[in-house]
Amino acid sequence: MADRLAARMRDIQPFHVMELLARARALEAQGRSIIHLEIGEPDFPTPQAVVAAASQALQAGQTQYTPALGLPALREAISAFYRQRHQVEVAPERIIVTPGASGALLLALGVLVDPGQEVLLADPGYPCNRNFVRFLEGAPLSVPVDAASNFQLSARHVEQHWSARTKVALVASPSNPTGTVVSTDELRAIHAAVAQRGGSLIVDEIYHGLIYGQQDETALAISDQLFVINSFSKYFCMTGWRLGWLVVPPAYVEAVDKLAQNLFLAASTVSQYAALAAFLPETIVELERRRAEYQRRRDFLLPALRKLGFGVPCEPQGAFYIYADCSRLVGDSYPFVIDLLEKAGVAVTPGLDFGSNDARRYVRFSYANSLENLVEAVSRIGHYLKSK
Amino acid sequence: MADRLAARMRDIQPFHVMELLARARALEAQGRSIIHLEIGEPDFPTPQAVVAAASQALQAGQTQYTPALGLPALREAISAFYRQRHQVEVAPERIIVTPGASGALLLALGVLVDPGQEVLLADPGYPCNRNFVRFLEGAPLSVPVDAASNFQLSARHVEQHWSARTKVALVASPSNPTGTVVSTDELRAIHAAVAQRGGSLIVDEIYHGLIYGQQDETALAISDQLFVINSFSKYFCMTGWRLGWLVVPPAYVEAVDKLAQNLFLAASTVSQYAALAAFLPETIVELERRRAEYQRRRDFLLPALRKLGFGVPCEPQGAFYIYADCSRLVGDSYPFVIDLLEKAGVAVTPGLDFGSNDARRYVRFSYANSLENLVEAVSRIGHYLKSK
Repeated sequence: MADRLAARMRDIQPFHVMELLARARALEAQGRSIIHLEIGEPDFPTPQAVVAAASQALQAGQTQYTPALGLPALREAISAFYRQRHQVEVAPERIIVTPGASGALLLALGVLVDPGQEVLLADPGYPCNRNFVRFLEGAPLSVPVDAASNFQLSARHVEQHWSARTKVALVASPSNPTGTVVSTDELRAIHAAVAQRGGSLIVDEIYHGLIYGQQDETALAISDQLFVINSFSKYFCMTGWRLGWLVVPPAYVEAVDKLAQNLFLAASTVSQYAALAAFLPETIVELERRRAEYQRRRDFLLPALRKLGFGVPCEPQGAFYIYADCSRLVGDSYPFVIDLLEKAGVAVTPGLDFGSNDARRYVRFSYANSLENLVEAVSRIGHYLKSK
Repeated sequence: MADRLAARMRDIQPFHVMELLARARALEAQGRSIIHLEIGEPDFPTPQAVVAAASQALQAGQTQYTPALGLPALREAISAFYRQRHQVEVAPERIIVTPGASGALLLALGVLVDPGQEVLLADPGYPCNRNFVRFLEGAPLSVPVDAASNFQLSARHVEQHWSARTKVALVASPSNPTGTVVSTDELRAIHAAVAQRGGSLIVDEIYHGLIYGQQDETALAISDQLFVINSFSKYFCMTGWRLGWLVVPPAYVEAVDKLAQNLFLAASTVSQYAALAAFLPETIVELERRRAEYQRRRDFLLPALRKLGFGVPCEPQGAFYIYADCSRLVGDSYPFVIDLLEKAGVAVTPGLDFGSNDARRYVRFSYANSLENLVEAVSRIGHYLKSK
């Protein structure tokens, strides 16, 4: 069988967390209480105005295809959002509405990367990204990053790792799994380094908006000659709606349009109508309330984990993740997460799901869960560690 | 700029009909009446029970991710549909819910096709299919088909065109653009020819259910060792919901799951809940009423076009298309469709959008439009041809 599969399937790994999740569900079916800190989606529901807009669109019979690049009104609304929130002009023509950020990444890599060409990515990083590159027969080049660069790619990394085969650098800010943010100055330096080498920069801003205690800046302020990926899933709490967007340099619109027509036809119509309400003032007020709640959770969980002996050298400034070094407490993080689930009823994601750079020293905690559950989880982990 | 695009973008063409559509919209904005026979989506709205199920899911807060392979209840419902309608057992485990049939094709080709490997496809055929193959660095091998094989791939074609580089044969039945259907006997012979050569067969059943005057059989009755792609877009009138499914041989489920996790996360949640109502008896009654209406339209349009001088050598038995030879009437079909739009206000799709096999002799008429409009279109085309 294996020899009948395309070669790419050998290099694309399933997520370990899926196995963990299956085990967690089995334990729950037995009546065990499990606290889910492995989750990658907001615990908040989709804002009411967004759901209402979806219902209205359905009642109005909006169930046919939209244009391949998205509803013009939604592309305008995203453009207006950049203007109002970030004081950046992004022409609606450069904004392509996609089926999730996944669709955006597929389009961006699809128009840029030839077989064998390298894409620089931070390790640890979101594992799907390197799998997308491999899917398209490109070569993901994972650059090991650590506290020295805030667990992010830097201009220095680009200079060191760029070769004649390299086409793209992909930066995720805030990062999944580390929650760290690339400063605008560093991003400007990365962009210059990439541009100087004739490459393209893709900035994954999927967790944009979920930033704590500092300015929330978009890479689009730096240049119109880079690609930005965003999503309605995280800040806007619209995971199940499968809606994202891609901003491209003006010269790439035509190619992306051609590819979107072929690969997707269009994103979900009802999701697009729903998303029109994502930018309403009342929605933003609610989302900002949720952002403050995430910050409260981080401000509880970060010191609590450090107190338990986890190492978190860089403060996570965004997303809803803490990437914690557990090497002072346990040996290998993978058996640890299994044992923690079985014995303490706390599910976290093993570092192995984010790359191979010291991955067995790390676990990812998600704080997309209530403060009450986070308090209980910390207590359970404390008891577990004492009883070892 | 062009040299910075990935090489695949040189081979992926936009659809000519997009330009035509833009011109049609411009004429309409000037107050001209345009009859749209270029459309590839049902003119019927999504069935009421499906829309109601979506609204209920939204009210119940079903807005988070589903499992990557789809809602278990939906996979069960599709399985039950195969049992009830086609007397075929398809285990729900083999059914993967996808973001549109596009997602299904991407998964199927993704697990099967290595760079340089050939995929046999009929020309004329749905143009996205060959572009998907090219997107994944495979080699689409377009096989010219004509009336001799009902404008479909045959086992004979497979035998003639298969080489050491060939991995997959892709058959679409009913076909877009020709509306013709592959008989079960022929499909069985194709499957045997492909299997004998160690390849895989993908059957595109996107227009399944829209079949007139004959039995509606699924390729799944032949074997569990083939891939079937289907969609909620056409028979179920759910285009904008972007929902399809893929049935795979049992041994491929794991690989497809892995790829779906990475490429899509999951299909739209509200669409999946909506689709649960697509199989309700009351929905099916309504869809069968619509099928009868499509048949009435075909039974009007087919003889009317022949009477005008168009050549339609094979009766289209399904979908909602007639692929008509206009070589007795005009020279090149591409200037003809432009002229027909400008002078007669009727939009049809040029053969060029479906391949290069005698494409300039053909145009595609869609009868996803009311009988009243079809009557008017035929009248306009008749006047146009007389005045030439």
